[in-house]
Amino acid sequence: MRAASIRELLTAFREGRLTLEEAEGALGGSFDFADLDYGREARQGFPEAIYAAGKTKEETCAILKALVARSEKSILATRVSAETAAFIRGEISEAVYDSRARLLYVERPGELDEEHTVLILTAGTSDIPVAEEARQTARLCGCKVVTHYDCGVAGIHRLFAHLEDIRRASVILVCAGMEGALMSVVGGLAEAPVIGVPTSVGYGVAAGGETALRAMLASCAAGGAVVNIDKGFGAGMLAAKFVRQLRRGGMQR
Amino acid sequence: MRAASIRELLTAFREGRLTLEEAEGALGGSFDFADLDYGREARQGFPEAIYAAGKTKEETCAILKALVARSEKSILATRVSAETAAFIRGEISEAVYDSRARLLYVERPGELDEEHTVLILTAGTSDIPVAEEARQTARLCGCKVVTHYDCGVAGIHRLFAHLEDIRRASVILVCAGMEGALMSVVGGLAEAPVIGVPTSVGYGVAAGGETALRAMLASCAAGGAVVNIDKGFGAGMLAAKFVRQLRRGGMQR
Amino acid sequence: MRAASIRELLTAFREGRLTLEEAEGALGGSFDFADLDYGREARQGFPEAIYAAGKTKEETCAILKALVARSEKSILATRVSAETAAFIRGEISEAVYDSRARLLYVERPGELDEEHTVLILTAGTSDIPVAEEARQTARLCGCKVVTHYDCGVAGIHRLFAHLEDIRRASVILVCAGMEGALMSVVGGLAEAPVIGVPTSVGYGVAAGGETALRAMLASCAAGGAVVNIDKGFGAGMLAAKFVRQLRRGGMQR
Amino acid sequence: MRAASIRELLTAFREGRLTLEEAEGALGGSFDFADLDYGREARQGFPEAIYAAGKTKEETCAILKALVARSEKSILATRVSAETAAFIRGEISEAVYDSRARLLYVERPGELDEEHTVLILTAGTSDIPVAEEARQTARLCGCKVVTHYDCGVAGIHRLFAHLEDIRRASVILVCAGMEGALMSVVGGLAEAPVIGVPTSVGYGVAAGGETALRAMLASCAAGGAVVNIDKGFGAGMLAAKFVRQLRRGGMQR
Amino acid sequence: MRAASIRELLTAFREGRLTLEEAEGALGGSFDFADLDYGREARQGFPEAIYAAGKTKEETCAILKALVARSEKSILATRVSAETAAFIRGEISEAVYDSRARLLYVERPGELDEEHTVLILTAGTSDIPVAEEARQTARLCGCKVVTHYDCGVAGIHRLFAHLEDIRRASVILVCAGMEGALMSVVGGLAEAPVIGVPTSVGYGVAAGGETALRAMLASCAAGGAVVNIDKGFGAGMLAAKFVRQLRRGGMQR
Amino acid sequence: MRAASIRELLTAFREGRLTLEEAEGALGGSFDFADLDYGREARQGFPEAIYAAGKTKEETCAILKALVARSEKSILATRVSAETAAFIRGEISEAVYDSRARLLYVERPGELDEEHTVLILTAGTSDIPVAEEARQTARLCGCKVVTHYDCGVAGIHRLFAHLEDIRRASVILVCAGMEGALMSVVGGLAEAPVIGVPTSVGYGVAAGGETALRAMLASCAAGGAVVNIDKGFGAGMLAAKFVRQLRRGGMQR
Amino acid sequence: MRAASIRELLTAFREGRLTLEEAEGALGGSFDFADLDYGREARQGFPEAIYAAGKTKEETCAILKALVARSEKSILATRVSAETAAFIRGEISEAVYDSRARLLYVERPGELDEEHTVLILTAGTSDIPVAEEARQTARLCGCKVVTHYDCGVAGIHRLFAHLEDIRRASVILVCAGMEGALMSVVGGLAEAPVIGVPTSVGYGVAAGGETALRAMLASCAAGGAVVNIDKGFGAGMLAAKFVRQLRRGGMQR
Amino acid sequence: MRAASIRELLTAFREGRLTLEEAEGALGGSFDFADLDYGREARQGFPEAIYAAGKTKEETCAILKALVARSEKSILATRVSAETAAFIRGEISEAVYDSRARLLYVERPGELDEEHTVLILTAGTSDIPVAEEARQTARLCGCKVVTHYDCGVAGIHRLFAHLEDIRRASVILVCAGMEGALMSVVGGLAEAPVIGVPTSVGYGVAAGGETALRAMLASCAAGGAVVNIDKGFGAGMLAAKFVRQLRRGGMQR
Repeated sequence: MRAASIRELLTAFREGRLTLEEAEGALGGSFDFADLDYGREARQGFPEAIYAAGKTKEETCAILKALVARSEKSILATRVSAETAAFIRGEISEAVYDSRARLLYVERPGELDEEHTVLILTAGTSDIPVAEEARQTARLCGCKVVTHYDCGVAGIHRLFAHLEDIRRASVILVCAGMEGALMSVVGGLAEAPVIGVPTSVGYGVAAGGETALRAMLASCAAGGAVVNIDKGFGAGMLAAKFVRQLRRGGMQR
Repeated sequence: MRAASIRELLTAFREGRLTLEEAEGALGGSFDFADLDYGREARQGFPEAIYAAGKTKEETCAILKALVARSEKSILATRVSAETAAFIRGEISEAVYDSRARLLYVERPGELDEEHTVLILTAGTSDIPVAEEARQTARLCGCKVVTHYDCGVAGIHRLFAHLEDIRRASVILVCAGMEGALMSVVGGLAEAPVIGVPTSVGYGVAAGGETALRAMLASCAAGGAVVNIDKGFGAGMLAAKFVRQLRRGGMQR
Repeated sequence: MRAASIRELLTAFREGRLTLEEAEGALGGSFDFADLDYGREARQGFPEAIYAAGKTKEETCAILKALVARSEKSILATRVSAETAAFIRGEISEAVYDSRARLLYVERPGELDEEHTVLILTAGTSDIPVAEEARQTARLCGCKVVTHYDCGVAGIHRLFAHLEDIRRASVILVCAGMEGALMSVVGGLAEAPVIGVPTSVGYGVAAGGETALRAMLASCAAGGAVVNIDKGFGAGMLAAKFVRQLRRGGMQR
Repeated sequence: MRAASIRELLTAFREGRLTLEEAEGALGGSFDFADLDYGREARQGFPEAIYAAGKTKEETCAILKALVARSEKSILATRVSAETAAFIRGEISEAVYDSRARLLYVERPGELDEEHTVLILTAGTSDIPVAEEARQTARLCGCKVVTHYDCGVAGIHRLFAHLEDIRRASVILVCAGMEGALMSVVGGLAEAPVIGVPTSVGYGVAAGGETALRAMLASCAAGGAVVNIDKGFGAGMLAAKFVRQLRRGGMQR
Repeated sequence: MRAASIRELLTAFREGRLTLEEAEGALGGSFDFADLDYGREARQGFPEAIYAAGKTKEETCAILKALVARSEKSILATRVSAETAAFIRGEISEAVYDSRARLLYVERPGELDEEHTVLILTAGTSDIPVAEEARQTARLCGCKVVTHYDCGVAGIHRLFAHLEDIRRASVILVCAGMEGALMSVVGGLAEAPVIGVPTSVGYGVAAGGETALRAMLASCAAGGAVVNIDKGFGAGMLAAKFVRQLRRGGMQR
Repeated sequence: MRAASIRELLTAFREGRLTLEEAEGALGGSFDFADLDYGREARQGFPEAIYAAGKTKEETCAILKALVARSEKSILATRVSAETAAFIRGEISEAVYDSRARLLYVERPGELDEEHTVLILTAGTSDIPVAEEARQTARLCGCKVVTHYDCGVAGIHRLFAHLEDIRRASVILVCAGMEGALMSVVGGLAEAPVIGVPTSVGYGVAAGGETALRAMLASCAAGGAVVNIDKGFGAGMLAAKFVRQLRRGGMQR
Repeated sequence: MRAASIRELLTAFREGRLTLEEAEGALGGSFDFADLDYGREARQGFPEAIYAAGKTKEETCAILKALVARSEKSILATRVSAETAAFIRGEISEAVYDSRARLLYVERPGELDEEHTVLILTAGTSDIPVAEEARQTARLCGCKVVTHYDCGVAGIHRLFAHLEDIRRASVILVCAGMEGALMSVVGGLAEAPVIGVPTSVGYGVAAGGETALRAMLASCAAGGAVVNIDKGFGAGMLAAKFVRQLRRGGMQR
Repeated sequence: MRAASIRELLTAFREGRLTLEEAEGALGGSFDFADLDYGREARQGFPEAIYAAGKTKEETCAILKALVARSEKSILATRVSAETAAFIRGEISEAVYDSRARLLYVERPGELDEEHTVLILTAGTSDIPVAEEARQTARLCGCKVVTHYDCGVAGIHRLFAHLEDIRRASVILVCAGMEGALMSVVGGLAEAPVIGVPTSVGYGVAAGGETALRAMLASCAAGGAVVNIDKGFGAGMLAAKFVRQLRRGGMQR
């Protein structure tokens, strides 16, 4: 029942395959969005995602197995500890663990978009794990990703070496901790949308990424937006959503 | 000199129109980005923008006049008080003042993109001024904008009335104060990128938009990002940047 | 002396069993509430509760043993570590440990109210431990509890599947971390009082439940209230207080 | 169309009064909750409410007029300034303004529940405006309200004078600013649910009600919950929701 | 030299025992307060105190040994870990460790003031370690201390049982975490000065003692003051300073 | 009934003037503290105090008049605006207004303690209004007060000029805004208890007195305590409580 | 007496011009620093400064007049309102008011250091008032100041136009609000010490300069330091202190 | 290519060694700052620095080895754990580990400036690790450093013992936790620039250094500035920058 569209449901009702009560119950009781969900899976190739923090290794493994069994898409678990990853890889042989990004994934063949580029920059080397979480997420969504790490504004020539890539990118992710100033500078140079990913790198007033977050939001460069601290996964998904719009020409259908 | 491209500068140098010292000075002293700027102006149709807060009415007016004189683009001043607007309209007859959005602009003919849609939603009626700042900004950048105001989650059927527009939009801006929950719900329904615009609507723990901001950032819906509180202008610019990429097919050239 | 009611004390005084000084001292010095307490115990069937955090396993055990010996009611200890639970279960054979809710309890027979329902919802699976603390507390207070876990607003159809239970509930507890938007949506759908239980689920701006807390408080849905972060026990008690009023018809006697 | 139930809509569709497209559109596009809303209005007698802050006096007046015309219920506007109230009372003769509570209302005859009592306590006299907002809201919802103002814990005998009312109440609202300790004491004395309403009374660390809010939430007394700072309206609604459950016996139907 | 009073120094200078340069150096270079210090030591019997947090066990031990050797007073080290205490007790046989208060001390005979009483109250059992740090500090300063633990306002009769001691006390310390309401109630009952000692007991909004601290400061009861979170030592010292004033009749000499 | 002591009540009961029910009700229902209050008034000479903030000038005046009529004590209203003061002085001829301290008072003859001294220091001239509120409060409570204003640590010789008074004081109040460092230095020099009164003087990170408050609380000088920001009245009361204990020899009776 | 050095005081004592008591009193009671102060005035040419915020116009004027009468130095009052300035200029004819910097000063001839340069940069035009407060302060201290305003990182070529001045400066002040990223970039380019002056420019998360402050402190560029928000005066003084060291060769004498 | 100056590049272009495209690419693409960097290394003798936090021991070691191989300067790694230090010292024999300062360095011969003094003060002994990080950094930059530890304001005579060094210093670093008052006092005594280094020493409201930071920034003493919490390295670098300017006479060349 969950896979039927409203139209199919109404048709079934008119044709007598559903009683008034059944139709009323389905529409009033569960608001079936399954058609949408089904269509999304077939069309998008976006991976299923599991947030592993706060789950036991057994729970995460069980959910992964179920997804592997019922879906043809890639599957992605974020914030996976090394111990959980080892456990799951003992159970699911095709699972791959990226320890820097703390991602565990089962990759399935999908379409790669070669036309558009997601550019990921980091201010320092300590921001790389977050950047890698974004990169892997975007890659598993079928995006081409270019990365330049360690080009913070304290040595601004490191950034200018990548001006050409900044100009060519379809969307840019800037991963930076401490004071996050890289986003302001990139925001002034780029024509593409720039998404800030504050990281929890730094100490004292860096405050676990809070200062980078607020600085990126307060940035005087127009046309940027920001995700939660250390949320590489979310930034990768947003970049992929944007690239999907580019592939579609901006319309869902 | 500022309008010359690096290439033109180098050519002028080789042809002897610039001495070594002049070329060195221009390149080493000012890092001329005018070529880029010039190209941007011709191609983009993005308006020039002035942040009027903290400027006197005379200062804002003088800058506007200068821009009107030297540019063919639309010109936009944000956070303009009624008093400043009255003063400027006495000086610049073609200036238009949108009192709800606190925007003052001089509109010049430009290309309108009819293919892609920027959808702007608000949770309540008090969020409308911020939404209007975003709408006018995107419109002056050549975007087609659709708005649905007052569809907060406390009466969630108001939102579902707009599901079709949510699906069709190229990018969605969600303006909400208080707890900003509308972004979470829209983020779960939309395939397009969703940009949260927290507003300073509410009292007590709403804390001038801080709670909406943090709630939007913490939202469990993947693929969204957030701008500063009440930053309708920035959200409108980001939406326009997205749409420009769609028009270009995602590449600068 | 502490168990005597004011009436008994006054009677003892009139009958000469207490001198004026003794009666004055007892009334002026200790304000005996024991009559009230005694009556409450007999009538309510609410469990005795111990907050185990910050107590050693020996201390918690000793208090539990004393309560088991002198009371016919169920006894409940919250925030009990696995180690403390193991120790106590070695000493008190009828003690049961719920490791997810971190509750340890000795259950005594009591009346179950079958007429009214406490509905507990969670946004995600990580909120379940807090929800279970609420559920067990309400259950040990004699309430019938219905739970639906993992129905957050990112996939809002999951919530609509439970509309009927939302309508039938006497009181609703919404357990959610991150941005806590589930409370706003449920608050708009339900006629029963809705109590928000923010959880410490999430990272970055989720800030250990602080954002969920503030978002729930700022929620535009009228007729809701909120408890401390992760305070499943308190929410369960409040729900049981509501249901007790319903059983009594809203009056204490 | 908006007033039709899902059942009516389905019937109309089967009987040919709606085409497939029309039915699909209505169900998919607007998720009609009007049946529910209609029933609620007839049954509850709850007033319609308008949040006047951030609206002009003309806007607030227009909405009020529309509601007066189409509804038989009482109508309530919160956070109404004296200037707006004067304007509206010039337009709507039956409108009444309560300047302490900043409420403006048009009262219609309704049922008063004489059996259950909402008790409202304040710590000081400065908390009275918030308490009055709660009292009027609950009263317009058909509740019997008892108030005791200025019984803060600094002179705790003032509170004990009202022990009997504390015991008899169906639900208790405690309005307090500064450190909000009254809630903790009442929470230990009452069997009824206790709802804290922190007020913005105080200076320095009182921080506009933030300290009272956090203290009430951290209160060691189990079985209480808290609303936003100064949210008398919300507390009154919650109390009325609970009393409605008592009248109904805890079930919606 | 450091023990000489200014008068002695001047005399020595006049008598030629100090050169001009020596006198200038002593006065200009070190501002000798030793007279004051010397007098204080003889008269007060206040213990020397060491803050052990952030020192290695070897460092703490070495400082203790030096003080034991050169002073006749009691010596007190605060925030001493069990490991450090064990190490020191192996080196200094007369050292005593109070593990609950995390105090290690070498007690020397001193005068006990029997006339005045320091009363220490706690809201719960978890506040006892902080209260014990205060009690031991005041005791080692020669104060008579009375304690009543676990008399928080959630069961206010527990507090009223101690009204007589509240009236008799010379100064009262109230140790409480969570919302710290005990201070407000005691402040309304007592004539003696009341010092609040917020503790880090609680979770969620209790925020490591921050809410208790702010609530105590915002308390509407006049005539109270507050020390840092968990600062039992400081509160004990302040109480002892006040009792010393009482013994002296309020004047230093 | 409210003025009767427990003893009188018990006597009335034994003599048959009260029935068992009446006695029970009085004791259980109202907890009569009037005897205590009456004794306090006669003995202490502390002024009655009114917090005028948030009251209209008519309300404040009415309360003052009632107190003037029924009490022989001085009466004190804090945070009185110039406008309210003018109004009240038109009604109550003996009322005096101290505009710097924003205090309005009716002074009645009382005993002045000449033996003990309250010393009030300020860091700068902007802290004087708060210091004056403290001074007047202590003075009206019968204390001798000495003040030294503008002796902040930036020019530390200004403080050392008052060392003698620091040594002689029975209790010291330190009023300081910005970073409040004066308290730390005085705390190291004084033997008397030192009470910090943070003021809202300063800008930027001074944060309305929050930084001074926290710095005073974190001060490494033992034996100090702190009141709310700008709470001169509370500090004056606390000082007076200290001095009263000194006069009594530390015991209530 | 206050002008005598310790040496002079000791000499006077030995020569019998001071008694033992007088010498003791002077040394113990007032710690005479006047010699130092006197020397400083003669040598430095630094202006006397008055913080006018929180003083009445009459008070500020009286202090200014006294300083004008007794000192040959320039005199400087900060945070002077237009109204106060007008009043003072009516009284002191040589007073000059800089309305942008809100400074009022009486300038006296002094030495100008032409060798060293204080460079002041601002990110935007709204930061200019703070920058001007710094510039005037440094100028009145005898420094040569170079300014470049409106060279924020959103258009980074504006900054690079001033690379030569950045290299030549003795010390650099960077005034910026919003996210303050300019300091990070300048810190990476300059060899001179860089002092950040966060300004209260911006809205929402800019939080009155708090975000710029924290971002500047968290900046990854080593060798910078930060002053309070909007503290142009303090930054100007620090720059002048450093230039004075340069003039002296780094030693006081 | 990266080492060529703009002049060289232009010359190469004119002489035909670079094509137009090559010159354009180099200038537009990479903004060559290598000349500057090269010059800086030769001239300054400042050590290379590595921030080891968040890097594995292998990564830190590899970077160190590379720097040792290619540079003649001293090399410095901050925030190095004991474990990492042991690993690196096994690989690089000339590496020295300072466990208190958590610094690991390879020292190369350099010029020591004997003329100017960096004075480092700490309030307590717990602040010493941060002070040592600053001392070693400044020392490796060729500065002469004088230190006085444990001279906090609670015993202010300890500070006055060092007045002469305070007067002689070229620049002063004040390391203090808790309330950081030492900076205010030193700021009032010193003529040299004073840099505050807040440390994370303390508990409760000390808040990990936040209170010391804010107190230092709010300090009323003009002419000071502050670095991030615990940032001894940054303070040492800033001091060295100051001293370098003194050596150069304030000009870069």
